[in-house]
Amino acid sequence: MTERTVISALAALEDGPVKVQGWVDTVRDQKKVQFVVLRDETGACQLVNPRSEGREEISDTISNLAQGTMLTIEGDLKADERVKLGGLEVKISSIKVESEADPETPIADDTSIDKRLDWRFLDLRTERNNVMFRAQTTLVNAMRQYWVERDYIEIFTPKLMASASESRAELFEVGYFEGKAYLAQSPQFFKQMAQSAGFGKVFEVGPVFRADPSFTSRHATEFTGVDAEISWIDSHEDVMNMHEELMRTALTAVKEKHGDDIERLFDVEVKIPGPIPRIPLLEAREIVESRGHKFERNDLDMDPEGEREIGRWALEEHGSEFVFLTDYPASIRPFYHMRSTEDASLTRSYDLIWNGVEIATGAQREHRLDVLERQVADKGMDAAELSFYLDFFRYGAPPHGGFGMGLSRVLMLMLHQPNLREVTYLFRGPNRLQP
Amino acid sequence: MTERTVISALAALEDGPVKVQGWVDTVRDQKKVQFVVLRDETGACQLVNPRSEGREEISDTISNLAQGTMLTIEGDLKADERVKLGGLEVKISSIKVESEADPETPIADDTSIDKRLDWRFLDLRTERNNVMFRAQTTLVNAMRQYWVERDYIEIFTPKLMASASESRAELFEVGYFEGKAYLAQSPQFFKQMAQSAGFGKVFEVGPVFRADPSFTSRHATEFTGVDAEISWIDSHEDVMNMHEELMRTALTAVKEKHGDDIERLFDVEVKIPGPIPRIPLLEAREIVESRGHKFERNDLDMDPEGEREIGRWALEEHGSEFVFLTDYPASIRPFYHMRSTEDASLTRSYDLIWNGVEIATGAQREHRLDVLERQVADKGMDAAELSFYLDFFRYGAPPHGGFGMGLSRVLMLMLHQPNLREVTYLFRGPNRLQP
Repeated sequence: MTERTVISALAALEDGPVKVQGWVDTVRDQKKVQFVVLRDETGACQLVNPRSEGREEISDTISNLAQGTMLTIEGDLKADERVKLGGLEVKISSIKVESEADPETPIADDTSIDKRLDWRFLDLRTERNNVMFRAQTTLVNAMRQYWVERDYIEIFTPKLMASASESRAELFEVGYFEGKAYLAQSPQFFKQMAQSAGFGKVFEVGPVFRADPSFTSRHATEFTGVDAEISWIDSHEDVMNMHEELMRTALTAVKEKHGDDIERLFDVEVKIPGPIPRIPLLEAREIVESRGHKFERNDLDMDPEGEREIGRWALEEHGSEFVFLTDYPASIRPFYHMRSTEDASLTRSYDLIWNGVEIATGAQREHRLDVLERQVADKGMDAAELSFYLDFFRYGAPPHGGFGMGLSRVLMLMLHQPNLREVTYLFRGPNRLQP
Repeated sequence: MTERTVISALAALEDGPVKVQGWVDTVRDQKKVQFVVLRDETGACQLVNPRSEGREEISDTISNLAQGTMLTIEGDLKADERVKLGGLEVKISSIKVESEADPETPIADDTSIDKRLDWRFLDLRTERNNVMFRAQTTLVNAMRQYWVERDYIEIFTPKLMASASESRAELFEVGYFEGKAYLAQSPQFFKQMAQSAGFGKVFEVGPVFRADPSFTSRHATEFTGVDAEISWIDSHEDVMNMHEELMRTALTAVKEKHGDDIERLFDVEVKIPGPIPRIPLLEAREIVESRGHKFERNDLDMDPEGEREIGRWALEEHGSEFVFLTDYPASIRPFYHMRSTEDASLTRSYDLIWNGVEIATGAQREHRLDVLERQVADKGMDAAELSFYLDFFRYGAPPHGGFGMGLSRVLMLMLHQPNLREVTYLFRGPNRLQP
C-alpha cells in the first residue's frame, strides 16, 4: 500500500501515484467532471474525477460528500500550472470514506465567538487557527530550548496544595478524600523551593487556576503559565535581562517559521524586540498623566487604559512594542517581593507590557527569613499557614528572582487578537467548562 | 565586579581571580588553615583560608558556618593536583554570608522517605537528586524535540472539566462558583478532539489527577502525564512504532548527557532499547503461567507480579528491558478503544512494560460515531453525559490513536528507584499535600 503523503509535501513529488488523507473542504459537482478540495493538517489540494464510464461509483460517492467528511484517496498526482491551488491536482483512482460528516454544520465564519467555542473542534479546523497553534508550539518550544541550553532544570510543581499560593480571594477548593485541597494559583512557592534545593535555574510551563469571576477579554479561570526562577541574581534587572533575551529568541523562532503565514492570515508582522525600555512605574504614571490619562483608582497601580497609553508612548518614543514597568510600590505587590535598598516603599519588581497589555510579572524575591517574616506580618498575613513556605528559607536560600507570564496573553498580543477566547485551545471562564 | 563562575566551569579557567556562589557542604576548621567545601547546582569545590594575620574576620566567619549557609566568595583560583576534589582550590579573599542556615538540620542520609519528603527541598540538594531532575529535563525535552521536529502541535488541554474523563470512581470534585467541576484524569477526550480539529499529530506533557486512595509504590493522586495522539494510523501498530522510536530517542539523549553520572550515582547503566517485542496479552498470560505464576483475579488482566514475570521473560528471551503487551480484551479496556477486526472481544490496544512495570497505555481509538455509541451502551455508560465528546465524531473524524505515559514511572524505572516518592519533585498522595 502506498504511504500517506501530507498535502504540503505533494509539490516536491514527481507526477505519479500518491495517497492523501484529509477532510472535504468544498465539492464542485459538474456534469462532466467533479472537483473536491481536500484539506489536511498541512494544507489543501484539488482532487479531480472525470465522470467517465466505469467511474460511476467514485462519482456517486463524491456527489454525496458533506463538508468535513474524512477521506482516504489514492490517485495520480499531476503538476498543472492552470490549477490555482498549488499548481497540482490528484486524479482519484480510489476513494474511501473514513467517517461521514453531518451536513448541517452548526457554525459558520460569521458565528459569534461563544457559539464557535461550543464547537471549538470545528472552529479549529481553519487554516488560521491551525497556524495559530503551530506558532504557539514553536514559541513555547523556543523558550524551553533557550532554557535547556542554559542548564535550567524543568520542574513539574503540584497543582494540588494544602493552602493558597497567592490570594485567598481567587482560590478553587477541591474535595480531597476526607479533607480539602486548593488548586495552585501559580507555581510561585514551589519554584522558589527549587532555589533552596540548589537547582540554580528552573522553568515550568503548566496550568494555573484563578477563581476570578471577571469576564474581561484578558481573564480566564485556567490558563497556561510560563514560569522561570533563577538563583544568584544581583537584582530584578538580571531577571529582566533573561526575560528580554527569551522573548527575542522565541519571537525570532516564530517569525522564521511562521512569519509569512501570520502576515497572510492575521495581517500582522511579527517584530523582534530590540532593547526593551525600563521605566519605574511612578515615572510611567506621570508620563501617561502628562499625555492626558486620568487615573480613577487611588492605589498607585496602572489601570488597563494606563497600560495602553504607556504602550503607545513606548512605541512612539522608543520604537518598542514592549516596555518594562519597574519598582512597583510594596503596597500593591505580594509579600514575597524584595524591597528596594534605596526606598523601602518600593519593590525590586516589574511588569512586562506588550502592545499596551500586561503579559508578565517578575521580581527579585526576599530570601532573608527575618525580613520575609516581617513582610508577612506587614501584609497582615498568617505566618502559621505560610510556615511550610517560610521553612524553605530556614536552611540557607540564595538571592533569587523570576517571572510568571500568561501564554495565551502572549499569543493574543503576538497575533493582535481581541481576547483570550480566540487563542486558547479550550477556554475556561466562570460560565464555560465545556467542551 | 567579577562575574559568577559555576563550579563545574572552574576547571577550564586559568589561575586567577574568581567569584563562586553556593552553599556550605563541610568545614574543616584547623589551627593553621580552614577548608570549606562549597557546592552549587553544578558541583563542589574546595575553598581555603590560611589563618594568617589580617584574615581574622574571614576566619571567624568560617568558624561559625553551618552546613547549608549560602555564600558569595571572591578569591583566587589555583590548579593543584594534590586537591582531591577536582584538582583545584579557591583561596578566599572575601566571604559574604547571603543567608544563614539553621545548624540543626532536620534530615540526614538515613532518614525515612516520609520525613525526607517533609523537607524535600533539603533532600533535593544532594548531587544524586540534582542529577535525577537534570536527567528528567533531558528526557522530557528530547521527547518534545522528537515531536516538534515531526510537526506535532503541542496542546494545553484544560484540567477543569464538566464531567469525568475516565472513570467516575477516581474523580476529584472542585467547587466552581455556584456549581462544580472535576479535575481531568487524563487529556484523553481533548487530545482526541484535536484529531477532529484536523491537527494531525499532537502532544502534551502536563498534570493529571486521580482520586485513588491506594498507597502502592506506583500510585500518586497527581502526576505528570506524557500524552501523544496521531491521525491517519492503520492500527495500534503505528502508535507503537512511534512510541518505540520516541523512547529510543529520549533514552539516547539521557545516556549521552547523564549516562556517566547515572552510573556513578545510581549504579545503573542506561540502555537504549532495540526493537521491542510485541506479545498479545493472552499469550503473555500463558507465558507467565508456564513460568509458574498463578493469576488470582478472574478479569484476564495482568497483575503486578505477572508484569514482573513477563518483564523477566522479555529480558531473557529477547534481551529487551521493554515489552509491549497487545490486544487487551474489550472487557478490561475503556469504551473508546477500537475493537479488533479479527476478534471483536479484543481491542487494538497495548501496554508498555519496562523492567516489569507498566509505564504507558496506548490504543487505536474508535472514530466511527455509530460504533462508538454502541460501545458506550455496551459499557452501560451515560451517552447524555458524554454527548460533548460524542459530538467530536459527528462532523468527520480521522482514524487515530495514541498513548498516555506516566513521567515519574519512566524516571523510576530508568533509575531503578523503589517508588514514585523518590522521583517526583513534590509527591502527592492521599496523605500528602505538603510542602
